[in-house]
Amino acid sequence: MAIALILLSWLVLDHHFHHVSAERSVFIVHMDKSSMPKAYADHHYWYSSMLKSVKSVPQASFDSLKPQPKLIYTYDNAFHGFSALMTKVELEALKKSPGFISAYADDVVTPDTTHSYKFLSLNTATGLWPASEYGKDVIIGVVDSGIWPESPSFRDDGMTEIPARWKGICQEGEQFNSSSCNKKIIGARYFNNGFQAGNPGLPIDVNSARDMDGHGTHVASIAAGNFVDGVSFFGYAPGTARGVAPRARLAVYKVLWNGGTSSDILAGIDQAVADGVDILSISISNRNTNLYENPLAIASFGAREKGILVCLSAGNRGPSFATLRSGIPWAVVVASGTIDRWFAGTLTMGNGKTITGWTTFPARTPVRNLPLVYNKTLSVCDSTELLAEAPDQSVVVCDVTIENRSFLFAMEYLSESNVRAAIIIAEDISIFRDVSFPFPGVVISPTEARQVIDYASNSSAPRVSIDFQQTILGPEPRAAPALSDDSSRGPARSYPGILKPDIMAPGVLILAAYYPNAIGPRIGRNIFLSSDYTLLSGTSMACPHIAGVAALLKAAHPEWSPAAIQSAMMTTANPLDNTKQPIKEQDNTVATPLGMGSGLVDPNRALDPGLVYDASQQDLVNLVCSMNFTGEQTQTIIRSSYNCSTPSSNLNYPSLIVLYESQEQGMTLTRRFQRTLTNVGDGAATYRVKLEKPKNTRIQIQPQILAFKKKYEKLSYSLTITFKAPDFSSPAPDGSITWIDNTGKYSVRSPIMLSPGVSED
Amino acid sequence: MAIALILLSWLVLDHHFHHVSAERSVFIVHMDKSSMPKAYADHHYWYSSMLKSVKSVPQASFDSLKPQPKLIYTYDNAFHGFSALMTKVELEALKKSPGFISAYADDVVTPDTTHSYKFLSLNTATGLWPASEYGKDVIIGVVDSGIWPESPSFRDDGMTEIPARWKGICQEGEQFNSSSCNKKIIGARYFNNGFQAGNPGLPIDVNSARDMDGHGTHVASIAAGNFVDGVSFFGYAPGTARGVAPRARLAVYKVLWNGGTSSDILAGIDQAVADGVDILSISISNRNTNLYENPLAIASFGAREKGILVCLSAGNRGPSFATLRSGIPWAVVVASGTIDRWFAGTLTMGNGKTITGWTTFPARTPVRNLPLVYNKTLSVCDSTELLAEAPDQSVVVCDVTIENRSFLFAMEYLSESNVRAAIIIAEDISIFRDVSFPFPGVVISPTEARQVIDYASNSSAPRVSIDFQQTILGPEPRAAPALSDDSSRGPARSYPGILKPDIMAPGVLILAAYYPNAIGPRIGRNIFLSSDYTLLSGTSMACPHIAGVAALLKAAHPEWSPAAIQSAMMTTANPLDNTKQPIKEQDNTVATPLGMGSGLVDPNRALDPGLVYDASQQDLVNLVCSMNFTGEQTQTIIRSSYNCSTPSSNLNYPSLIVLYESQEQGMTLTRRFQRTLTNVGDGAATYRVKLEKPKNTRIQIQPQILAFKKKYEKLSYSLTITFKAPDFSSPAPDGSITWIDNTGKYSVRSPIMLSPGVSED
Repeated sequence: MAIALILLSWLVLDHHFHHVSAERSVFIVHMDKSSMPKAYADHHYWYSSMLKSVKSVPQASFDSLKPQPKLIYTYDNAFHGFSALMTKVELEALKKSPGFISAYADDVVTPDTTHSYKFLSLNTATGLWPASEYGKDVIIGVVDSGIWPESPSFRDDGMTEIPARWKGICQEGEQFNSSSCNKKIIGARYFNNGFQAGNPGLPIDVNSARDMDGHGTHVASIAAGNFVDGVSFFGYAPGTARGVAPRARLAVYKVLWNGGTSSDILAGIDQAVADGVDILSISISNRNTNLYENPLAIASFGAREKGILVCLSAGNRGPSFATLRSGIPWAVVVASGTIDRWFAGTLTMGNGKTITGWTTFPARTPVRNLPLVYNKTLSVCDSTELLAEAPDQSVVVCDVTIENRSFLFAMEYLSESNVRAAIIIAEDISIFRDVSFPFPGVVISPTEARQVIDYASNSSAPRVSIDFQQTILGPEPRAAPALSDDSSRGPARSYPGILKPDIMAPGVLILAAYYPNAIGPRIGRNIFLSSDYTLLSGTSMACPHIAGVAALLKAAHPEWSPAAIQSAMMTTANPLDNTKQPIKEQDNTVATPLGMGSGLVDPNRALDPGLVYDASQQDLVNLVCSMNFTGEQTQTIIRSSYNCSTPSSNLNYPSLIVLYESQEQGMTLTRRFQRTLTNVGDGAATYRVKLEKPKNTRIQIQPQILAFKKKYEKLSYSLTITFKAPDFSSPAPDGSITWIDNTGKYSVRSPIMLSPGVSED
Repeated sequence: MAIALILLSWLVLDHHFHHVSAERSVFIVHMDKSSMPKAYADHHYWYSSMLKSVKSVPQASFDSLKPQPKLIYTYDNAFHGFSALMTKVELEALKKSPGFISAYADDVVTPDTTHSYKFLSLNTATGLWPASEYGKDVIIGVVDSGIWPESPSFRDDGMTEIPARWKGICQEGEQFNSSSCNKKIIGARYFNNGFQAGNPGLPIDVNSARDMDGHGTHVASIAAGNFVDGVSFFGYAPGTARGVAPRARLAVYKVLWNGGTSSDILAGIDQAVADGVDILSISISNRNTNLYENPLAIASFGAREKGILVCLSAGNRGPSFATLRSGIPWAVVVASGTIDRWFAGTLTMGNGKTITGWTTFPARTPVRNLPLVYNKTLSVCDSTELLAEAPDQSVVVCDVTIENRSFLFAMEYLSESNVRAAIIIAEDISIFRDVSFPFPGVVISPTEARQVIDYASNSSAPRVSIDFQQTILGPEPRAAPALSDDSSRGPARSYPGILKPDIMAPGVLILAAYYPNAIGPRIGRNIFLSSDYTLLSGTSMACPHIAGVAALLKAAHPEWSPAAIQSAMMTTANPLDNTKQPIKEQDNTVATPLGMGSGLVDPNRALDPGLVYDASQQDLVNLVCSMNFTGEQTQTIIRSSYNCSTPSSNLNYPSLIVLYESQEQGMTLTRRFQRTLTNVGDGAATYRVKLEKPKNTRIQIQPQILAFKKKYEKLSYSLTITFKAPDFSSPAPDGSITWIDNTGKYSVRSPIMLSPGVSED
């Protein structure tokens, strides 16, 4: 919902203000800092001076509004460079300056929710929570729409003093002062120079880190919200809210306004790196697919270099193939799945039979032994006049499968009737997930409806009771997780050679803290409701779950590299749902790693993975160097401090994707992968390989036994896969390779995904 | 609200079923048990045999439905007698039986919550709560519509084992089994033989002590509900609910169904007396004004004899003079007052000014900086068409003072508009107290409205925010308590010689437990809400407050008689409100003892009153004997075990009413009262009298100093008042007599009320 609103407001902005910024617009410029002449005291002077030298429009008193190119940000932590408002002519001049690497236009970004901790088996008795002291002292940077600091989720009771290593600040601003921060929110900054430069004259709603949207607040409370009792969404999902890492710190970087731009996001991430965050949670997508023009890819590379694990949302463009944009090999890209929670209205018919339907009608309304009305004419429920014929104070059955009638219109007509409640028959209940219920309605399937219709038709005085605000946990009526339809699918357009997304986390109807003045569900014709906690869905909500787990792992294993943390989460992720069957799509077909990565994160298993696939920054450089980029494009990502002498696409990654191109269909192909495992278990251990071969493939593993003699020992294996490239129309097959130790304690699993390549957009 | 529903349903019953019971109807018969022939094993056989002997219709096979008079209940605890279904001819025959005292037709009765404990200054640190251990082990019998045992208010955590002296049971019935009782609800019984006999064929909704209305549950939880956190009425009055005596026991006697009859009430009270309750809380009124035909008066007399204090609601027929029906000298009759709580919607205008209006709109709706619309045409708000012209998503000002437009209709029209909220201008905000708000509206006064209209008229883009669900405590905006308009006023038609009501307690918008399936406030056009706790108003809610305080006093002073407990509450009651001014009526005129009795109960002061006006059962007998009743009428109340040799209207009562009749207007009259005080303070104490003389009176007190030498010593005084009987059109004057001890610790106050007498209906 928040996503739709932000997109919409952006489109409006684009339309109204484009002419204002036509002359000069914002560009992001990457510089080779090693080329800085010694005459400059620092990079800021260098960039300023460079910009002055390129001005194309002579300064004149009658044109004082656009005197010269304007520096917006300098960047020096995640990467080197700056952003500036300039004309294309000025940009061309700039390209000739010494040290210039690359430049690209500032881009529009879009932001992509609490039983989920329990669904992830986090508990106070054993496993990752106690082992990590709930993420104590790990700092999670959240780059988003800011924060609502008064939310009870951000109280700091139980939090210890802020660690001395923290270099961030609590930036004051409109409706935000130093007391807005505490031992939970240890940093807060805001960045809108880019947004303002790109949209001159557009007012900034509240010029501070205060969240006037709710997205940032929601995401932050998922990652690291404190314990809050008695929370619910209008009676649904009641319980004690808490983040995945309830004792971790939050540092907030507000970069989303009524829209967001790359330059501001880069500034936010750059500052987060400088401030000393440990984990970055970024639930944002951008439009650019080129890694060397993607601020998230560029800044994440720099952050990773500083030992910061970056979690990114996969995006909400599923379920089509190759809809994933931020396919960044050096970030954990997170897919969204359902949790084992069902919001229900329970029908109890006069004959004693009960049916559990779906509803989120946001109030407690008494429906006790009211007359149940079913007849074919009335059940179309397609006009106020028709429903005026329904008996007062009755419960009517509306069949929206008849001539594809609209559920939403039926709700409006019911709101103008004297009917007390409705039972709605619909083919696909899952499409009602994000639909709000302005009238007391319960959605049931055509199969379930048969019982209702039989009873209503064969009883002289049929009656029904409905209990709203029911929350049902467990594998019934739907197995969980299921991959969310809208979660973006791999392979990644930016770089298909690394399997993306990496992992799945809860992202459907997650209850978390919110902007308390947001307009929430409507009731009746014109009454809007709001709440301090709301249900949101999307990969935006999945991402901070992984950031939270990463924070817990960082607290438990401070010595682990970002790659090790990522590997631990991925190799222990669960490809099965809570009925022990392979995780499904929402249409009940089996999900593949192109949708869910390695499966659902399993925090307690990730605490002790046995082995990890580690990778150094140089390994990432070698990967970038293999990407067939120009020197400037490569340097934009890796900067000059690295060299490209050993390019390699064989990144030591905890998953495998086997690509084939359209011209290869029907051909027998062989691909070879090299991987190295590091023993992070205690002492010697012998692992044997277990293969689940993708259909119609032959796989050779060499060696098939890895005998580690001590902790931190590294052993390598090669995997050679021979397969006949399937038709592009066939479903791509997948399998897995799992290393299992002799005691059976550890199993280190990597998905193997065969996939057609991605043609350029 | 509940009251209105029950009255309505009774009227329906009366209409539909009267013909069925035309031949035989229920009569209540009072018997002199000492006349029972020795041949009968017990009273039950005696009454049965008597009834058989009077049957007027010979039994015939073709008239099997009405074979003979039918015994409904026998009564043996509160009084002696029975109720039976019989014809008038049979009744006439019965009257000739030996031992017959009197008989009267069964009558219809009508039933007349939780910051209030705090308003009454009950606290855990000092005073009556700790002194009484929160009413530990005192048993409060609640005669009402039953109980909803699953309400969290009736959980028994913190309750000790049930005392061995308890003789009651947990009567099983429909949807009510032995597990419905616990250490909080220690008894539950139900009585509907009378109701069923009077309404044959009418189904009993749930045939058990289960409350299907909410009135009984509400009242019981006010008296003795356990502590329940996080309770509110849709966001209003949030906090921890608790009864006045949270550690007292409850014994429930369900006598109200879709209506209620005297025979059932008598059976309930009779059983409560047998079971061993300590206090009876009865929030029920009946139509009969004759004490000898009033089941509450008769049964209360018997209960009082067993040491049980009976609390009765004054009724909700105010504010007119002499609207009080159950003016029973041997029960505490309770008036209803407001508490210091205001349910608000706070308006914040764009110019920063704020106004606190009244609302109970039952949801949280976001109204943030929306356009504020005032124009005279629109503000009539009297049609859907008119309001369609209001800007979408705006806040409109509706002036219901214009041509006396209807608030309720305006709400309906607003519900069909695209307006987001309304500010309603109304002359008398207090009339909105029991009005529900189906649309987001806030009521403000014409004075307050001037600010809004000025701002809306003089600003180019007026904007307003409204915060709903605000709860404001304290003396602003209204002093509390104020006497509730609908609280029935004395003098009592049944017997004006004792000042009634006795005392005031909170009874306006009291939050307490409720029947969870009750239809609560409406929202929009057709959406009804329900809640586990609801706000109700009436003397029904005031009565259990006094029952709770009496239970606390009984626990703290187990040796005190019912008269002593009553005296302690009355002589320490506060005639001033929280602004230290005399308690007002809701129209802001000063309330008199005819409305509020001695004033607002002050539990902590009642714990240690210094002196009490005690009275024995014989004193009550002497009063009844002075009432000019026939021998049978007198015996109906006092039974044969007492004699009438010393009739006296000078009951030793903690208040004084000075009556004058219409034929005495302008005459100078003298009335003399005799009172006796018992020292319940510790040891010797000397008291001096302090008089507040009613206007135009002369009062002599003899003696003026009472020097008690030890605890429990009794000293008497006489009060002679000389006055010119005012015109009946003049307001009756009142004053008080207060005995104050030398240390200033104790002041023992009794109101003196001059009042015209009551002519017979």
